Amino acid sequence: MNPEKLRELLEGVRGGDVDIDSALHRMKGLPFENLGYAVVDHHRAMRHGMPEVIYGEGKVPEHLLGIFKNLRTQSPNVLATRVSREAAELVMSEVPDVEYYPASRVLRVWGDRRILSKGKMAIVCAGTADIPVAEEARLVAETMGNEVLAISDVGVAGIHRLFGHLDKIREARLCIAVAGMEAALPSVLGGLVSCPVIGVPTSVGYGAHFNGLASLLGMLNSCASNVTVVNIDNGFGAAYVGTLINRI
Amino acid sequence: MNPEKLRELLEGVRGGDVDIDSALHRMKGLPFENLGYAVVDHHRAMRHGMPEVIYGEGKVPEHLLGIFKNLRTQSPNVLATRVSREAAELVMSEVPDVEYYPASRVLRVWGDRRILSKGKMAIVCAGTADIPVAEEARLVAETMGNEVLAISDVGVAGIHRLFGHLDKIREARLCIAVAGMEAALPSVLGGLVSCPVIGVPTSVGYGAHFNGLASLLGMLNSCASNVTVVNIDNGFGAAYVGTLINRI
Amino acid sequence: MNPEKLRELLEGVRGGDVDIDSALHRMKGLPFENLGYAVVDHHRAMRHGMPEVIYGEGKVPEHLLGIFKNLRTQSPNVLATRVSREAAELVMSEVPDVEYYPASRVLRVWGDRRILSKGKMAIVCAGTADIPVAEEARLVAETMGNEVLAISDVGVAGIHRLFGHLDKIREARLCIAVAGMEAALPSVLGGLVSCPVIGVPTSVGYGAHFNGLASLLGMLNSCASNVTVVNIDNGFGAAYVGTLINRI
Amino acid sequence: MNPEKLRELLEGVRGGDVDIDSALHRMKGLPFENLGYAVVDHHRAMRHGMPEVIYGEGKVPEHLLGIFKNLRTQSPNVLATRVSREAAELVMSEVPDVEYYPASRVLRVWGDRRILSKGKMAIVCAGTADIPVAEEARLVAETMGNEVLAISDVGVAGIHRLFGHLDKIREARLCIAVAGMEAALPSVLGGLVSCPVIGVPTSVGYGAHFNGLASLLGMLNSCASNVTVVNIDNGFGAAYVGTLINRI
Amino acid sequence: MNPEKLRELLEGVRGGDVDIDSALHRMKGLPFENLGYAVVDHHRAMRHGMPEVIYGEGKVPEHLLGIFKNLRTQSPNVLATRVSREAAELVMSEVPDVEYYPASRVLRVWGDRRILSKGKMAIVCAGTADIPVAEEARLVAETMGNEVLAISDVGVAGIHRLFGHLDKIREARLCIAVAGMEAALPSVLGGLVSCPVIGVPTSVGYGAHFNGLASLLGMLNSCASNVTVVNIDNGFGAAYVGTLINRI
Amino acid sequence: MNPEKLRELLEGVRGGDVDIDSALHRMKGLPFENLGYAVVDHHRAMRHGMPEVIYGEGKVPEHLLGIFKNLRTQSPNVLATRVSREAAELVMSEVPDVEYYPASRVLRVWGDRRILSKGKMAIVCAGTADIPVAEEARLVAETMGNEVLAISDVGVAGIHRLFGHLDKIREARLCIAVAGMEAALPSVLGGLVSCPVIGVPTSVGYGAHFNGLASLLGMLNSCASNVTVVNIDNGFGAAYVGTLINRI
Amino acid sequence: MNPEKLRELLEGVRGGDVDIDSALHRMKGLPFENLGYAVVDHHRAMRHGMPEVIYGEGKVPEHLLGIFKNLRTQSPNVLATRVSREAAELVMSEVPDVEYYPASRVLRVWGDRRILSKGKMAIVCAGTADIPVAEEARLVAETMGNEVLAISDVGVAGIHRLFGHLDKIREARLCIAVAGMEAALPSVLGGLVSCPVIGVPTSVGYGAHFNGLASLLGMLNSCASNVTVVNIDNGFGAAYVGTLINRI
Amino acid sequence: MNPEKLRELLEGVRGGDVDIDSALHRMKGLPFENLGYAVVDHHRAMRHGMPEVIYGEGKVPEHLLGIFKNLRTQSPNVLATRVSREAAELVMSEVPDVEYYPASRVLRVWGDRRILSKGKMAIVCAGTADIPVAEEARLVAETMGNEVLAISDVGVAGIHRLFGHLDKIREARLCIAVAGMEAALPSVLGGLVSCPVIGVPTSVGYGAHFNGLASLLGMLNSCASNVTVVNIDNGFGAAYVGTLINRI
Repeated sequence: MNPEKLRELLEGVRGGDVDIDSALHRMKGLPFENLGYAVVDHHRAMRHGMPEVIYGEGKVPEHLLGIFKNLRTQSPNVLATRVSREAAELVMSEVPDVEYYPASRVLRVWGDRRILSKGKMAIVCAGTADIPVAEEARLVAETMGNEVLAISDVGVAGIHRLFGHLDKIREARLCIAVAGMEAALPSVLGGLVSCPVIGVPTSVGYGAHFNGLASLLGMLNSCASNVTVVNIDNGFGAAYVGTLINRI
Repeated sequence: MNPEKLRELLEGVRGGDVDIDSALHRMKGLPFENLGYAVVDHHRAMRHGMPEVIYGEGKVPEHLLGIFKNLRTQSPNVLATRVSREAAELVMSEVPDVEYYPASRVLRVWGDRRILSKGKMAIVCAGTADIPVAEEARLVAETMGNEVLAISDVGVAGIHRLFGHLDKIREARLCIAVAGMEAALPSVLGGLVSCPVIGVPTSVGYGAHFNGLASLLGMLNSCASNVTVVNIDNGFGAAYVGTLINRI
Repeated sequence: MNPEKLRELLEGVRGGDVDIDSALHRMKGLPFENLGYAVVDHHRAMRHGMPEVIYGEGKVPEHLLGIFKNLRTQSPNVLATRVSREAAELVMSEVPDVEYYPASRVLRVWGDRRILSKGKMAIVCAGTADIPVAEEARLVAETMGNEVLAISDVGVAGIHRLFGHLDKIREARLCIAVAGMEAALPSVLGGLVSCPVIGVPTSVGYGAHFNGLASLLGMLNSCASNVTVVNIDNGFGAAYVGTLINRI
Repeated sequence: MNPEKLRELLEGVRGGDVDIDSALHRMKGLPFENLGYAVVDHHRAMRHGMPEVIYGEGKVPEHLLGIFKNLRTQSPNVLATRVSREAAELVMSEVPDVEYYPASRVLRVWGDRRILSKGKMAIVCAGTADIPVAEEARLVAETMGNEVLAISDVGVAGIHRLFGHLDKIREARLCIAVAGMEAALPSVLGGLVSCPVIGVPTSVGYGAHFNGLASLLGMLNSCASNVTVVNIDNGFGAAYVGTLINRI
Repeated sequence: MNPEKLRELLEGVRGGDVDIDSALHRMKGLPFENLGYAVVDHHRAMRHGMPEVIYGEGKVPEHLLGIFKNLRTQSPNVLATRVSREAAELVMSEVPDVEYYPASRVLRVWGDRRILSKGKMAIVCAGTADIPVAEEARLVAETMGNEVLAISDVGVAGIHRLFGHLDKIREARLCIAVAGMEAALPSVLGGLVSCPVIGVPTSVGYGAHFNGLASLLGMLNSCASNVTVVNIDNGFGAAYVGTLINRI
Repeated sequence: MNPEKLRELLEGVRGGDVDIDSALHRMKGLPFENLGYAVVDHHRAMRHGMPEVIYGEGKVPEHLLGIFKNLRTQSPNVLATRVSREAAELVMSEVPDVEYYPASRVLRVWGDRRILSKGKMAIVCAGTADIPVAEEARLVAETMGNEVLAISDVGVAGIHRLFGHLDKIREARLCIAVAGMEAALPSVLGGLVSCPVIGVPTSVGYGAHFNGLASLLGMLNSCASNVTVVNIDNGFGAAYVGTLINRI
Repeated sequence: MNPEKLRELLEGVRGGDVDIDSALHRMKGLPFENLGYAVVDHHRAMRHGMPEVIYGEGKVPEHLLGIFKNLRTQSPNVLATRVSREAAELVMSEVPDVEYYPASRVLRVWGDRRILSKGKMAIVCAGTADIPVAEEARLVAETMGNEVLAISDVGVAGIHRLFGHLDKIREARLCIAVAGMEAALPSVLGGLVSCPVIGVPTSVGYGAHFNGLASLLGMLNSCASNVTVVNIDNGFGAAYVGTLINRI
Repeated sequence: MNPEKLRELLEGVRGGDVDIDSALHRMKGLPFENLGYAVVDHHRAMRHGMPEVIYGEGKVPEHLLGIFKNLRTQSPNVLATRVSREAAELVMSEVPDVEYYPASRVLRVWGDRRILSKGKMAIVCAGTADIPVAEEARLVAETMGNEVLAISDVGVAGIHRLFGHLDKIREARLCIAVAGMEAALPSVLGGLVSCPVIGVPTSVGYGAHFNGLASLLGMLNSCASNVTVVNIDNGFGAAYVGTLINRI
């Protein structure tokens, strides 16, 4: 039951064609989307100027291609994350203007490059091995209309490297801090800026790193009060929340 | 070396009393706080209208009292979290206008009740047992100048309870979702609102809950893209970041 | 907005007092409980002949007393689980006919003892130390109207003890198997009966038992196909689901 | 029956007071294999109208083929789970009417399609990536004679999608809820239906999901009382128990 | 023995070809409880000269007293492990000749001190803090009739201490090695003796010891091939198995 | 310094060629093997009639071949465990009479088939998937001179299968119980026999099995007192200890 | 057999009283300490100028007193760690010049205050709650003769605080970095100094800190190459190793 | 702002071209590296005679080649760790005098072989499977100018093997102990030497070894006080810290 159907029903009530008890009965289970809610929700991403984002992990190339082409007809910007090279090549062979970033495994069309957010988003990355995750965050953020300041290789074991970028970072409305190993960057950075910091632990490390657990625990226990955390390697999620904050 | 000292040094240079090499030498190790940075930093909380927040865990009552009294002389608002009843009673016996909230173990003076943030902050709490953590978040948030909308007992196993509050929640600029057990609230809520959601997993549960681990993992793996997470039971941290977002 | 309110609205539409657009607008956010859903849900437990069950953990005695007295006015059967002795004594001093079971920490009034389920529910318990959890399951099950067959001390290291009860157990429509330590009972029992088995791992054990983790993992990895599992020490949950199955 | 009783029985046989058939009958519950119980047990699956189910993991294709052919001679329905494509192709090249489902890796002959259960079984699946596990459950359930209602892509971050199916789901006698990531579906669904819900956590997720641990813990800590849980990705087990419940 | 064989046997009994005693004898392996096997099993411990052992954890003092007195009437030796001081004092006030060992929390009557095993059992203990677990093992072993060689404080960080006892240890038929912290003793000892070594990890340690997990993992990964392991702090279990080996 | 060297030294002392102080000095650090200990130790395996056992994991085929050939010259029996097919084929192409068991990845020459132990060793295996581990144990045990009773597919979910073999199992001096999944076999078996049981948890399982952790914890928490445990999949270790026990 | 005995034996050989074969036989098992090794080892601590250190955890006050008094007679410096207040008070009532540090629970007599090491040892502590562990390290280090530079409250979320002390820290030969929560201090500090850094993770934290696990993993995964780690809260161990390094 | 810029600024102040307030303002954020700090830091490795070390994991061969060639122009010694064979072959085809060690995956040019440290560094390795990690440590240590004593296959289950090398090991200034499985070597070794021991747990093991966790926990809980620990398989880190100690 969509709004049109509901309008018809109400008109039936007004016209006397439908008695109130049967109207009540038909409205009882009233699923949300019948009220148009789902439609609104479905379009929410686009109304916010956010491109649809496809999660490519485990999708067979043909399915990914189908979804990608479909979204491309609706939006100038289309993003897919965690896309295999094989799937990327299939899409690029059929859809024009698609770029593939093999390190982060992001695939996108970036047709509409307007800035939609109100401030800068800093994406600060600890080690060079963390760059793929930071790149995913950057690509998502810029495709969603953020002005992005991307800074790499400023891990805390060479703290002066971070200081060299501090003035610029402090101009951002929010920071995304991407770090593996002991993942101390959000704590140090959090103490140096006044804005919210979203920590993205990465799976970069070995041995007692346990595939990102060490980085995750480090960020969750940050002694800086302005840090929140997303899942390991979840550059997309950090950029998504960052965009929401940056649009406030 | 504080700014005054640095000024003196520069004046010595200007006046020729200090040659440039020895000035350079003295400035070489130039610790940050010597440039007044630390002072700025120390005062940052207050300049932002944020009260100093004391972490009471493990502090002996006398020390807590000393810190509390000291801060009270500087600010109309003082907050302390995780304060034992014993310490609270000591402080209340010596400092006027102090309130103690035994469930959340928060102690505060709330003299300056101006709203300093730009929007509402919703603090949504799943079960009644999670209320102490939500209360900590609420007390921190309101003392820091937020207009807070606090909603309790809207766990996902009775999803209609949440829907009853949805219109109000959607007016908020951001949500804090406090939940123990399976901690599904941020996922459900995140799908229903467009703003950022900060999830606070709680240690409420038993058995395979492992003191909050289950809730934490649930929130980190949320299928809603607008959720970030803080440490287990960290109502303070969520409110702190929420305030930063709410002031943007 | 409850059904009465909705009826009024529809009558307004029918009578022309409310135009359709404003009716649509008012119905847009239509929270579920406004349609009476919540009321139905709230009464669901009682309509099913199930007593309200209070989770006593962490509740102060006075609150528990208040809730207990309130429910007592509405139902002949009231159950509270995980009740401290102190709270139990307070309730017993004020409410007649209340029994307290200190091992399982269950508090109940069992006024209506009719059998509401269609078959027997076997509650089979491995070791004597697991009895408190099995007792919680038994008290919940019988208060909810099940005919319960409770068998104790039939751990698998003395498998003949189980065989002595097998004929009776096979008459049950479902089994609840309560076990700590290696928790092999559901596997062995599951292979001997044709009905569903609900495993309740307990926290009984030490060392590498890790507070019930070993029992939980054992049950989840059962080689018997008819076993499902609930949380560690969750006798209540097993009895609740068991009652639902037993009423089919 | 103790030794004295057995001696009496034997004396009755010797004296002619007890005929051999009734002696045999009374001894029926005696040790399994000695009384041919094992044979009965071996046939239990088939007597219940359940096809034999082969666990294909790790079996070499030739062995799988042998077992499959053997069972095919005894039953119109044969199921094998976790079958590699290589093994599936071998079986399909030798046995007629075999279907292979590559997503769930199920191989089956479904000759006898009668409905043997008394109600509907709903299999509700959170995300598209969880479909392989839900498909395994569906194939097992329908081959075992259940009327199955399969619903996909109703994850809790878009809760309205679930509401659209609720009326149909409520007609089922039991629900199987398949979900990865935070796995909140059983909690939300459990609050909306009155029947038992069997949760199947999946290994769908990354990072702090730890191969299904997050989903498993989420379901075990469900705040809905009508949820029990099986092992990660165990669609088969959920369908098996569901069939037992559905035949009550 | 299958039904046909059983029928033949019964026919032999009826026809007089088989007398009842030999029929009973052939049926002896039949189901346990029916043949009184359980009774036999119940007495197994005593027939082996092993005293009944009571697990005292969680037992209320009155229950422990009752069980202890009962066993005392049947056996000159009675052992209870993990007994609280309160329970011990109650038992000692009512039963003569009872000794309590507060470190290991063992309570026993040791009336029959005959050596029933064939060789010596060495119980080797790494640190002084591990002595309570080693003492439990020693008391169990000697009460079960073993000649025990107990050696303490021979941790591997002072390896020469172990060498000083090696000649005596090598006379033993088996060794029990009790160790906390890194628990390297079984590996070192296992390389120096030819007999089986039973490792007992203890919960002695702190921090990354995780209540015995580190010791347990250390022993399970021993590079000495003659080491098997029991649960953390399970001195009783080691002594029990050791006695079985020592009686071979 | 080997015994010959020590003898020379003593002869030097006796003959006056070496004064006592310098003899003492040379003997001060006296490494063990200098006293011939290492040689004894090195030959210990063979003196006990045990073949040398090579751990093949990670060894390149050429190295394995070299070691295997060398040992073959010294002993009629040579065993290597965890050998890749590639390495096995290389060895078989160069050494006569070598057999390779691909399931357990054991490679051996079994020239001397005398029974060296005093009783039978039962190797009891729960599921067919556990057979590789049981086979490793069997091959090690029989090559080391044990009379082995190998029984498969007697998992506890069909407990009658175990009972059919019980009489034979009870003739053994010790049992090795190999089991994956919930690994309840040692507990059930331990309650049915009087001899020591060595449990070998296997990595057979999925999901919450965590590569053998569930089986390991199950066995460590066995409620049967006669069970000790070795590492996951360590069939070799169980057979080695079992041989030591069987030779007592 | 000590050196004197060995000398006698050699003299017997020289004199012809002992033949070589029987000398060889008596020397075969030659335990280390018989060569005086143990004595050397036993006195090693004191020869190095290190006081004996008593681990007080779990020791009853009377035993602690006995050991303390005994050591006091041999050394001007005596240290005991992890001492309860009760035990401390007993010792202080009987031994003069004993100081007790309740935060770190260290008890000591510090009679000989000479500096025995060659450089400074910096003990740098992140948060005020970590001070007890740092204090333990400091007391151990100074009692062992180090010149200690103790710096507190220089956590990385206020990085400028650390810079203020950097010149002094760089004068040290080695640093001990004590930190809880995310424990980033060793990484940051390690990047700023050239000397070895010993990280001491503390149990200070809550929730996902898991009693020090987060801090421990953070330090083990440090991106600074000059960091090694000791157990959680092991201030003693860090100071001990630090002393060894400082004496090189 | 680098030192030159700062000098200019000061000259501006001296000359009156820059007033003090604006000088203060420009110096306020004063990033560290602008003071030349970064340059010093960047060159620190080389000033210490340490070659630059490249972490090869995850680097594409072309990038590794580029970095390697660049460093080769600056230093006679270049080291890269965790280098794939493919990348190694590329580098060796373009850079002369490069050696690749496939077991440890180290690639190096070792042109300058001077000894820069003051003592010997012993690298002691438990099992042959641990050799790759020990080799990494050895190559790093010797390229950094240490005199290395490398000893292999001295695992604690054959303790006499270690004693045979003890005299030489005791000459070292520090020991690196590399061990997998139960990793007892540092504890035993730590008790036999007076110098610092750096433990390197390895991932060598299986089953309950959990990829090195068992070895790591073993070393962290060492009962020898002179042991510190680095991450699993981190031979590089141990050698790096060892070099710092060896240069003191």
